[in-house]
Amino acid sequence: MTSEYKELTNYQKTTLDNGVRVITETVPYVQSISMGIWVHSGSRYERPEVNGICHFIEHMLFKGTDKRSAFTIAKEIDSVGGVLNAFTSKELTSFYCRVLSENTELAVDLLADIFLNASFPDDEIEREKQVVCQEIHQLEDSPEDLVHEILGIRFWRDDPLGQPILGTIPNIVKLDRNTLVGFKNQYYTPDETLICAAGKLEHDAFVQLVERHTGKFPRSKADVYKIQPKSDASAHVEERDLEQVHVCIGMDGPSAVDPRRHAGYILNAVLGGGMSSRLFQEVREKRGLAYAVYSFLSSFSDTGIFGIYAGCDPERLQELLNIMGKETLELSRSITADDVSTAKSQIKGNIILAMESTDSRMNRLAKGEYYFGRRVGVDEILAALEAVTLDELRETADWMINEGRYTIVAVGPVGKDTDLFGYFRGL
Amino acid sequence: MTSEYKELTNYQKTTLDNGVRVITETVPYVQSISMGIWVHSGSRYERPEVNGICHFIEHMLFKGTDKRSAFTIAKEIDSVGGVLNAFTSKELTSFYCRVLSENTELAVDLLADIFLNASFPDDEIEREKQVVCQEIHQLEDSPEDLVHEILGIRFWRDDPLGQPILGTIPNIVKLDRNTLVGFKNQYYTPDETLICAAGKLEHDAFVQLVERHTGKFPRSKADVYKIQPKSDASAHVEERDLEQVHVCIGMDGPSAVDPRRHAGYILNAVLGGGMSSRLFQEVREKRGLAYAVYSFLSSFSDTGIFGIYAGCDPERLQELLNIMGKETLELSRSITADDVSTAKSQIKGNIILAMESTDSRMNRLAKGEYYFGRRVGVDEILAALEAVTLDELRETADWMINEGRYTIVAVGPVGKDTDLFGYFRGL
Repeated sequence: MTSEYKELTNYQKTTLDNGVRVITETVPYVQSISMGIWVHSGSRYERPEVNGICHFIEHMLFKGTDKRSAFTIAKEIDSVGGVLNAFTSKELTSFYCRVLSENTELAVDLLADIFLNASFPDDEIEREKQVVCQEIHQLEDSPEDLVHEILGIRFWRDDPLGQPILGTIPNIVKLDRNTLVGFKNQYYTPDETLICAAGKLEHDAFVQLVERHTGKFPRSKADVYKIQPKSDASAHVEERDLEQVHVCIGMDGPSAVDPRRHAGYILNAVLGGGMSSRLFQEVREKRGLAYAVYSFLSSFSDTGIFGIYAGCDPERLQELLNIMGKETLELSRSITADDVSTAKSQIKGNIILAMESTDSRMNRLAKGEYYFGRRVGVDEILAALEAVTLDELRETADWMINEGRYTIVAVGPVGKDTDLFGYFRGL
Repeated sequence: MTSEYKELTNYQKTTLDNGVRVITETVPYVQSISMGIWVHSGSRYERPEVNGICHFIEHMLFKGTDKRSAFTIAKEIDSVGGVLNAFTSKELTSFYCRVLSENTELAVDLLADIFLNASFPDDEIEREKQVVCQEIHQLEDSPEDLVHEILGIRFWRDDPLGQPILGTIPNIVKLDRNTLVGFKNQYYTPDETLICAAGKLEHDAFVQLVERHTGKFPRSKADVYKIQPKSDASAHVEERDLEQVHVCIGMDGPSAVDPRRHAGYILNAVLGGGMSSRLFQEVREKRGLAYAVYSFLSSFSDTGIFGIYAGCDPERLQELLNIMGKETLELSRSITADDVSTAKSQIKGNIILAMESTDSRMNRLAKGEYYFGRRVGVDEILAALEAVTLDELRETADWMINEGRYTIVAVGPVGKDTDLFGYFRGL
């Protein structure tokens, strides 16, 4: 890739009197606006006895406010053909929507209303418990999702980072209105809230709109429950009657602010990021062992996890584990300048292509602010990627991969004779 | 929604001397180009003994040509950070990529090379059989995907439209080079091939590029194997040890060219298309029966299927079936002018928002050409949607839903006492 990326500099940030930060990026040629209210709330801040509460609160915000019923919320957004949704992660919760720019005021009003004024009616809480229990059962029935979930629990051990975002059914059943409202009041504070928007907008007008709809937001400070995560070598099998065995192996990874994160992105691309990656070539193309095989890097504010996944027939599981182990463990020695050059171009191209989506831009605004307290431009990321050397990559690979802290999880008909640690034990 | 959609009219179509149609839409403000080679090949044109061959050919096109190995294909696209992929449906196969516009020539060269010159080496065929068998096993392990697959098989009965796109393992294992190359030569013909592109491009230059890379394309005519589909009331249970029962119910739906298709889109939106839809409100919001519940409409060139899906706990399956049956069967009587107005706005908004993606635009170019042989503009679709009356909706609902040809499929721990037809039998 030879071209230079031309950065838009339509970034603006305003902190309201109530402490909420409003961050926008104008994209003049689109007709839509993508906006999100983000709050520093997620499953790692939950005490074990209420694990699942953040995700449950996210659901309850759609169940009615003082002035809108659940049906009215749904109907208002459907009536303008917009998209309204939310997600809860381990560290952040986001309520977002995408509408034509002429519906910006409705979008701000609606998002601010559910965010600030959700009323948590008792009968809706009881019904939503059933919905969330169904969501947990659905995850249990999806082996690829399940193996990632178990990896998190096992990799982070006693740390709340390992807790499932959806929580557990016994926890969900016990939740009550006081606990929910109390938790929300503690964590949904203006200092921890961002309102980000990208698309057809004008910053000052957008800020005024937000101010009008969030003016009464009370100031307070969240108490964040967080302990330092640990990981150690371990293997865990969940026997299931399935066609395939689904395997995930987790290792240390850089945090979202670690200077080694760019090296982590490159290693992830080389090992399992695309069709030309080691795992795709060795596992799928050369041996036909799996249809789905990839690596992944999940970074949080102070730590991260690097992992690999594949699903294969039970009788070839040992062969799969050996190949995955070999490619992963040898990466720091086998990586070449040519691999690095391909991976850099691949990541850069993906980032630039993603910038054509206002949703991606809006997400990028929020993450820059949460992790760095400022704008992190695409030009800055591309320059940092370009600067990573082969030596840095080898050092980072040695730290991520070769320090021996593997967590191996297998879901499916694993069988007693499988040596899950296989190649990983050998080195 | 009050605004009028401003249609871009940067649509151009050229038929090359070899018969291939090249259709482009210039989107001046983006940096990327999304392009696809589309061919009239898919699982409904397969004789039963080779079911799965179209999807297998799609895979083989990535396994090397006279001048590129499988690894080179992967590496070239990764090196420019592009996206290269393909899909096979029941009627169409598409090989597509998205790259920065400066990489347009590489993209055309690469796509045309794999499309025209894939070499089908015997050893790669054998390895790819294993990959596709893994893909089939992965689908078997995903109950939501599986229930949709079984619905297709049962709904279309003996018609090839019901055959699984991936085929069956016994069929895949039997495929050989002669059969694959013979099928490809028969169906991958210039008259049945479209090359569509949307994004930063100039039509004449793009046509010249395509001409240079597809010049030798031999002219021939495909023999399309197709019989008229039939459906009838039937219920099918696949017992599985799962947390949830996954249910799909199929009914008649309009084809992609049926004048009633716009009524079909609206009925789909009202019944199960968004958060304010009947099924979402009645099944999830009011009763907490399911986390995932929706309706869908799949249209083909001459027929279609309308369906509903939900996943729930086994002990509430009968309640779920009764509610889904009631809402579906009563739709033609219960639908109101207000529902219709919301649904129209919802569909219009979704269409306009999708036009910000070059991939969506490229797909729309191909489908307009396949089904209508011409440009089908967004303005035309919006006008047709707006014109649908409540009477037409009731008539269409009576035909789609109330003629009694239901195919009901359940995957999971169904239990002997469940009356799958429940409410559906009552009317």
